[in-house]
Amino acid sequence: MKTTKPWISGMFAAVMLTGSLAVSPITHAETDGGQNTVKNVIMVIPDGMGNSITGLTRWYQNGKPLEVDSYVNGLVRTYASNSITTDSGAAATAYATGHKAVTESLSILPHEVTMPGVPATKAEDKNKPVPTLLEAARLAGKSTGLVFTCTLDDATPDAFVSHAVSRNESENITKQMVYSGVDVVFGGGSALLKPEGKDGGARKDGADLTKALQAQGYDYVTSKTGMDQSKAKKIWGLFQPWNLEADFDRDPKQQPSLAEMTSKSLSILSSNPNGFFLMVEASDIDTYGHENDPVGMVSETLAYDKAMKVAIDFAKKDGHTAVISMADHNTGGLYLTNYDSAKQFNAVMQKAKHTNHAIREKIKKDGSNLKQVLEQDYGLTGLTSRELAEIKKAWKQEDGDFSGVIGRMLGEKAGISFANEDHTSEEVVLYAYHPNGFKPTDFAKSGVLQNTDINKYVQFIMGFHLDELGKSLYASGHDIRALGATVTFDNSNKAFPVAVVKKGGKQIRLAVDKNYAVVNGQKKTLKIPTLLIDNRLWTDRAVLDLLK
Amino acid sequence: MKTTKPWISGMFAAVMLTGSLAVSPITHAETDGGQNTVKNVIMVIPDGMGNSITGLTRWYQNGKPLEVDSYVNGLVRTYASNSITTDSGAAATAYATGHKAVTESLSILPHEVTMPGVPATKAEDKNKPVPTLLEAARLAGKSTGLVFTCTLDDATPDAFVSHAVSRNESENITKQMVYSGVDVVFGGGSALLKPEGKDGGARKDGADLTKALQAQGYDYVTSKTGMDQSKAKKIWGLFQPWNLEADFDRDPKQQPSLAEMTSKSLSILSSNPNGFFLMVEASDIDTYGHENDPVGMVSETLAYDKAMKVAIDFAKKDGHTAVISMADHNTGGLYLTNYDSAKQFNAVMQKAKHTNHAIREKIKKDGSNLKQVLEQDYGLTGLTSRELAEIKKAWKQEDGDFSGVIGRMLGEKAGISFANEDHTSEEVVLYAYHPNGFKPTDFAKSGVLQNTDINKYVQFIMGFHLDELGKSLYASGHDIRALGATVTFDNSNKAFPVAVVKKGGKQIRLAVDKNYAVVNGQKKTLKIPTLLIDNRLWTDRAVLDLLK
Repeated sequence: MKTTKPWISGMFAAVMLTGSLAVSPITHAETDGGQNTVKNVIMVIPDGMGNSITGLTRWYQNGKPLEVDSYVNGLVRTYASNSITTDSGAAATAYATGHKAVTESLSILPHEVTMPGVPATKAEDKNKPVPTLLEAARLAGKSTGLVFTCTLDDATPDAFVSHAVSRNESENITKQMVYSGVDVVFGGGSALLKPEGKDGGARKDGADLTKALQAQGYDYVTSKTGMDQSKAKKIWGLFQPWNLEADFDRDPKQQPSLAEMTSKSLSILSSNPNGFFLMVEASDIDTYGHENDPVGMVSETLAYDKAMKVAIDFAKKDGHTAVISMADHNTGGLYLTNYDSAKQFNAVMQKAKHTNHAIREKIKKDGSNLKQVLEQDYGLTGLTSRELAEIKKAWKQEDGDFSGVIGRMLGEKAGISFANEDHTSEEVVLYAYHPNGFKPTDFAKSGVLQNTDINKYVQFIMGFHLDELGKSLYASGHDIRALGATVTFDNSNKAFPVAVVKKGGKQIRLAVDKNYAVVNGQKKTLKIPTLLIDNRLWTDRAVLDLLK
Repeated sequence: MKTTKPWISGMFAAVMLTGSLAVSPITHAETDGGQNTVKNVIMVIPDGMGNSITGLTRWYQNGKPLEVDSYVNGLVRTYASNSITTDSGAAATAYATGHKAVTESLSILPHEVTMPGVPATKAEDKNKPVPTLLEAARLAGKSTGLVFTCTLDDATPDAFVSHAVSRNESENITKQMVYSGVDVVFGGGSALLKPEGKDGGARKDGADLTKALQAQGYDYVTSKTGMDQSKAKKIWGLFQPWNLEADFDRDPKQQPSLAEMTSKSLSILSSNPNGFFLMVEASDIDTYGHENDPVGMVSETLAYDKAMKVAIDFAKKDGHTAVISMADHNTGGLYLTNYDSAKQFNAVMQKAKHTNHAIREKIKKDGSNLKQVLEQDYGLTGLTSRELAEIKKAWKQEDGDFSGVIGRMLGEKAGISFANEDHTSEEVVLYAYHPNGFKPTDFAKSGVLQNTDINKYVQFIMGFHLDELGKSLYASGHDIRALGATVTFDNSNKAFPVAVVKKGGKQIRLAVDKNYAVVNGQKKTLKIPTLLIDNRLWTDRAVLDLLK
């Protein structure tokens, strides 16, 4: 292959080192002579950011265009394999793997296909794991990163490193992330790394994953200062026990912004001469969409826009980096219907300084300052006693819709209406930057792409071939047994059940969700964590060679 | 100017003939050597078609892409000079003239500018008429056409040929259209051409504009057969007394589809060697949006898509035609939130065969077949007695929200929600075809354009310069008086008040909304109709020469 691009030879070197042609950059690169191949890709997913939410956000900044506006390239269809409306799991699976998925699932082939144009899954392939862009990048010797503002068990980041029937299998998918080999993780959810009863930990399986990270050589930080000062090439930074605070609410000394996390990631990942793949998620546009809180929606959309500026500025300076960004779906059914001027709109809207989360924190237990907080921090002045009573009722109830009640009251003053508190199915806006100007719509030859086409575009410009990779990557329990081995399970470690494979005098122990095998007592690194999906075992195909 | 494009010399010839350099194609054409200049432009405006409505429509056809999908080129910001949310008047003014306008106004400079980035209007220019793309095309010797499904006094078509403070000045703006010199008009609203009390006419000013059209040499048809059989180069076809029927409801023998009207227009307009400008409006996506009737919205979006196919097929075959299309705003706050398959969705949605308009027609005066019609024609099966009572109540009331009540009931079954019954302010999707691939986003160097940029793009590719044209086109009453003339009004003809201009022995009679002057008894054609806007007179600047 003739090329002047050093990272392509680098990738080959890496592939050679792993001893299997895990990724075949040739196949696609040859179709356009590799002229549009890039070294690095930054994928930015503003979770739940429908077209109306960017509209609202522009008005919040008095109509000023967003940084991303220049990069609009088309629209993306978001539907799942089994549903018109998608969820973040199925949507992120499409972006990560190129396959439409069943809602709630993470990077496995669909067991249910009811939607037009989605290929049916062969019976034996239902729920089979499929490799992701991040995994392909790692196996090609590139560095990889995940940045998000949600907890680390949330669907979007997990779809890039985990494989599960349900995104709700929190404990399993976080273990997979810990053993995924990803170089940089910045986000929220430190409680999910620690056993229940220890340092505010929440894991019922008793696993101490902070230790597991440190054993793998990761730096582990929990504050902005810690992140800023770290010189590590492999790092996890979790800045809140659970979700990060909204950008409008956060303490900038404790919690970095999405832009700052993106910037730090890029400085780490870009030191790899083979390049990198980074996924950045503005996770909580969706959260505040569900909550019908326009303040949170604006806060997080602005945070996204700033992170996009960091990504695109990097890409432009670097010259070998593409940036692709699109929501997974819209959330909250927001519309702005306002016949006032931007100034009049902001006379209402900019009085709200914080999201409903911070508002709730500020209200005293007895509710005595509720009215005052709503006035000063959420701009809800002149509330009637009836309105106040409605808010108080929702605030008192454990499952009350406090956010929605105050969000919609603010919305009414600002000309904002919400159709629902759910995801919606319309197409999302696609933003793209490519150093040669080769955009996804050029690749797809259409202005409306499938979410799976986004993945295929990234494969194309990174020279990946995920389907081929998948074939060479996974062995099933069935494959193992077909070689005459037995497979039993050792469940003595609650957190990490172990598949015990025996053949002749050989014993191979495969801890589920861990990325190594123990072969007759000897630890051997696997390319991927071993998986147990719908009671079926999947592991690195290299295990078959160990049995031969 | 060196060019091999015959229509450009044609345009110049036309400009020479009119005796004033009304249009200056050089200015812009020189900036890119004229390489992206086209002969013809088709502008298609799907009124009120937000992004969610195209989404809904795709699902109605089981997820099949729309014809327009391939041509998505970016997004358009729609705001007015005085409001975040626009109306069809201000929006069409932006597309027609390149100026942001006050809501409800038609192709005049704004008297109120409160929105960021909109240039303030000089005191003397407030409410001054500004030329439109259609007027510029006509003055450059091109043929022109207007196709729509609404009545002929509706804002979108009128903004291309009329100038008024309010789109509600129905009688004035229809007179301007009749005297606009436009070659082809197809749409609804024949009642607006005839005096009240005559053939179902509705004009209170007593004017018989059907006669006025015939006097100008137009063929005037009122049925599809009439349209099909006409060989005229100048033709008006109005196929209903008021609004056209929805595509799902129309009698195809009586009323042509939007695609058929577009096709016929193109066959007429394309015979002009100088080229043409055609505006096609799918007017009633907006109507059914306001009415929260998803059936009507789908009906009209499909009709739009078919018309777009006609336009783009023509353009591709012709090789000298650009097509540009974008809504003016979204209407009805629709969202589709459906976790079913497309098949399940259509098991509900496709049971609805007709819009609420046809449903209402089918219900007997005594309401005895109401339940049956709703079941058979609108898919509302299994209605509870409470639901039926609610529908019946809305149906009985003169101003009842019958459409909304049944539309939202159907919506609930189909997973559709409506945030409101109003326009919404988010960006609309831009579709474009250009024979050289020179798209609006290439022109604007951004993926998010102002609605005024759309106009500037069309100016650029047609070689127009509307600002220059405006300066050379209009004289005000003030300009006339400055030459020592007097201006008085003769109101003896209620329909057409006449400005009487006198200087020395010369008398010039300028009938308001007519495109000619009577100079000492001699009729002389003007380039534009004389206008009375906010009590100020505007006429062809050539009148000044007559006074010198």
